[in-house]
Amino acid sequence: MPVHQATCTAPVNIAVVKYWGKRNTSLILPTNDSLSVTLDQDHLRTVTSARADAAFGTLEQGPLQDRLWLNGHEEVVKPGGRLDACLTELRRLRAVLERDDPSLPPLSRWALRLCSENNFPTAAGLASSASGFAALAVTVAELYGLSETLSRSELSKIARRGSGSACRSLFGGFVAWDMGRLDSGDDSLAIPVAEREHWHDLHVLICVVNDGKKGTSSTSGMQRTVETSPLLQHRIQHVVPERMRRMRAAIQQRDFGAFTDLTTADSNNFHACCLDTAPPIFYMNDTSRAIVQVIEELNRARKEAGEEPMAAYTFDAGPNAVLYVREQHMPTVLRVVRHYFPGASFDDPFQLGPSEGLPSLPPSFREDVVPVHDAGCVRRLIHTRVGDGPRVLERGCGPASLLNEEGLPLRS
Amino acid sequence: MPVHQATCTAPVNIAVVKYWGKRNTSLILPTNDSLSVTLDQDHLRTVTSARADAAFGTLEQGPLQDRLWLNGHEEVVKPGGRLDACLTELRRLRAVLERDDPSLPPLSRWALRLCSENNFPTAAGLASSASGFAALAVTVAELYGLSETLSRSELSKIARRGSGSACRSLFGGFVAWDMGRLDSGDDSLAIPVAEREHWHDLHVLICVVNDGKKGTSSTSGMQRTVETSPLLQHRIQHVVPERMRRMRAAIQQRDFGAFTDLTTADSNNFHACCLDTAPPIFYMNDTSRAIVQVIEELNRARKEAGEEPMAAYTFDAGPNAVLYVREQHMPTVLRVVRHYFPGASFDDPFQLGPSEGLPSLPPSFREDVVPVHDAGCVRRLIHTRVGDGPRVLERGCGPASLLNEEGLPLRS
Repeated sequence: MPVHQATCTAPVNIAVVKYWGKRNTSLILPTNDSLSVTLDQDHLRTVTSARADAAFGTLEQGPLQDRLWLNGHEEVVKPGGRLDACLTELRRLRAVLERDDPSLPPLSRWALRLCSENNFPTAAGLASSASGFAALAVTVAELYGLSETLSRSELSKIARRGSGSACRSLFGGFVAWDMGRLDSGDDSLAIPVAEREHWHDLHVLICVVNDGKKGTSSTSGMQRTVETSPLLQHRIQHVVPERMRRMRAAIQQRDFGAFTDLTTADSNNFHACCLDTAPPIFYMNDTSRAIVQVIEELNRARKEAGEEPMAAYTFDAGPNAVLYVREQHMPTVLRVVRHYFPGASFDDPFQLGPSEGLPSLPPSFREDVVPVHDAGCVRRLIHTRVGDGPRVLERGCGPASLLNEEGLPLRS
Repeated sequence: MPVHQATCTAPVNIAVVKYWGKRNTSLILPTNDSLSVTLDQDHLRTVTSARADAAFGTLEQGPLQDRLWLNGHEEVVKPGGRLDACLTELRRLRAVLERDDPSLPPLSRWALRLCSENNFPTAAGLASSASGFAALAVTVAELYGLSETLSRSELSKIARRGSGSACRSLFGGFVAWDMGRLDSGDDSLAIPVAEREHWHDLHVLICVVNDGKKGTSSTSGMQRTVETSPLLQHRIQHVVPERMRRMRAAIQQRDFGAFTDLTTADSNNFHACCLDTAPPIFYMNDTSRAIVQVIEELNRARKEAGEEPMAAYTFDAGPNAVLYVREQHMPTVLRVVRHYFPGASFDDPFQLGPSEGLPSLPPSFREDVVPVHDAGCVRRLIHTRVGDGPRVLERGCGPASLLNEEGLPLRS
């Protein structure tokens, strides 16, 4: 008996024009376009194995009971929930194939076992729902034999039902999520803007910021902003459309100056709308703001010396900074960050080597822009770069599988 | 020889619809209307003595050299500066009187000595420019005998030339600054909205927040926002006009619920525009945000219990919180603030008495909304209430004078 299984990986993406607000919360249709950079799966990824087996239960026996393990813990698959919405759509597409070719095994009628692992700890403070739902959609599509007929953009609509920003993890490089206009959501999908190779020297430094505070979930936060912020409406109607145009151009031209101006302005604009919410939503903390001040001062001093900026910062729904930096400037940025925010754990895959103290900086750089912070304010640094799209690791149950022969997690 | 001198006081005001941005930086004409509450001069005030004397120099001897002492330190009076702009206009009006009545002493042709003191320390973190320029305008107008012909609204235009928000300190109670439309600024002035007696039980708690950071001055900050923030334009054109209408109504009706919603929303909207500036401007810090979270939770729990909110917070261009609270609720708010932010110095003129721990609160109040902070995060508490307008303390050189017989500061 063949094992009906696939194992795939999907990347993390970090938006440079932010998604904040849904026009349809059930279908997860956004109020504006967004654009992100896909990070390298060599460093940050979700791996997912999916298996269908009649032994797990069949439709003939009653409602299917799919099972899912996330990082070794079993999660409840809620009927009508987001995961269920993704699986239902994938099953529907598989059922069409089976109807057209009765020789196919009836996988759509069998329960699924799904096992998913992130190679980055939850403690890294990175949202894993984007890579998670992207990996889920790609893996089940692969298992169901849908990948040849279903484009990645089509598949992004299914990942979107799990988590909006997941749709952008269906491609590598630079990816736009077109908000679409249809009530059905059929035109709300991811479209590649540029391949990773187009701007291969774009590196990324994630600064994981220590934060005791319970955050506001992005799902509930964004709808509160939609309901209460007068500024968000202006962002949606006027700010983002113009920024999307200019961001596409900046990426096409590899114009790091424009890319930096747009990325930082959009991060700040998004957090401004959070602050304009009633009650206000705070994601950035004093350490986040100190990172902003150091990077702004670095860029200002560079500009004064007639040079392009050195780093673009962006913050998602949390205090962590993500810095986009050209490869050649990363040693400098790393030393600056480690000088002001000492004590972060750091294991650099690019082996830039340890360096103490401030590097040589543009002459007008004001060293007292912020004080040197207490050790551990920035808890961890992760160095990565722009990456490729989801990868199929294997079909069947081989060495990459996260499930054992019985369809249970290998690790727990 | 009579001494030509006057001594007056002027109050601090705290805006509930904020002023941020000038359409004319020289005349200090704002981009939107604003509205403030005047605080009680029994607790917070600037006192100013102004004397004119031929012995200080006369126009016949050359350009006049006015002298000014602020809190015991002599300041340079820059020709063409803001102080000079105020004095020039007051002299012009005095000269008209002297032309019409040649029996008047030619005070407009004599140099001035000005001495100004705040009864609150600079360390209290309160902007003193509003009360300072209001006291200056009122005192020199009194000295020049202008107060009978010049209305307080007319005088507010002169104070405005010193510091925009100073115009609102010309009245007690609730005061609007009408932005005006004329290029000359002749219709950009303060207008009383309601007397202090209209809403006499409106009390104020100022939470002075510890902050190591150098702030961005409001003068330079607001113009950077005008130049770079897309959201500010929306605030100016759409958000503020509607809020001014609703705020006037809330005050007329003494509707504390509406007053709270509008005050907090406008504070957050203003700080959102600061954050939307390039580079972003941060005034609130982690302690400021924790105060917001405590007050929002208190108001939420009250609302759930079917009661009106307990406190409205607002933040100016710094980390300090100003809370508006009905007198009857101040003991509760004080205990809550002192519970989460212990160790603040506090000398309550209303003698509400020391109280330890949390008072009885609405049942749904989540005590873990923020942790109890380290002692001193809030450095000082000041309890005051809505107050009256500028007061004339004396004409001539009596016991209230800040100047000695030689026209030098009594205290330094």
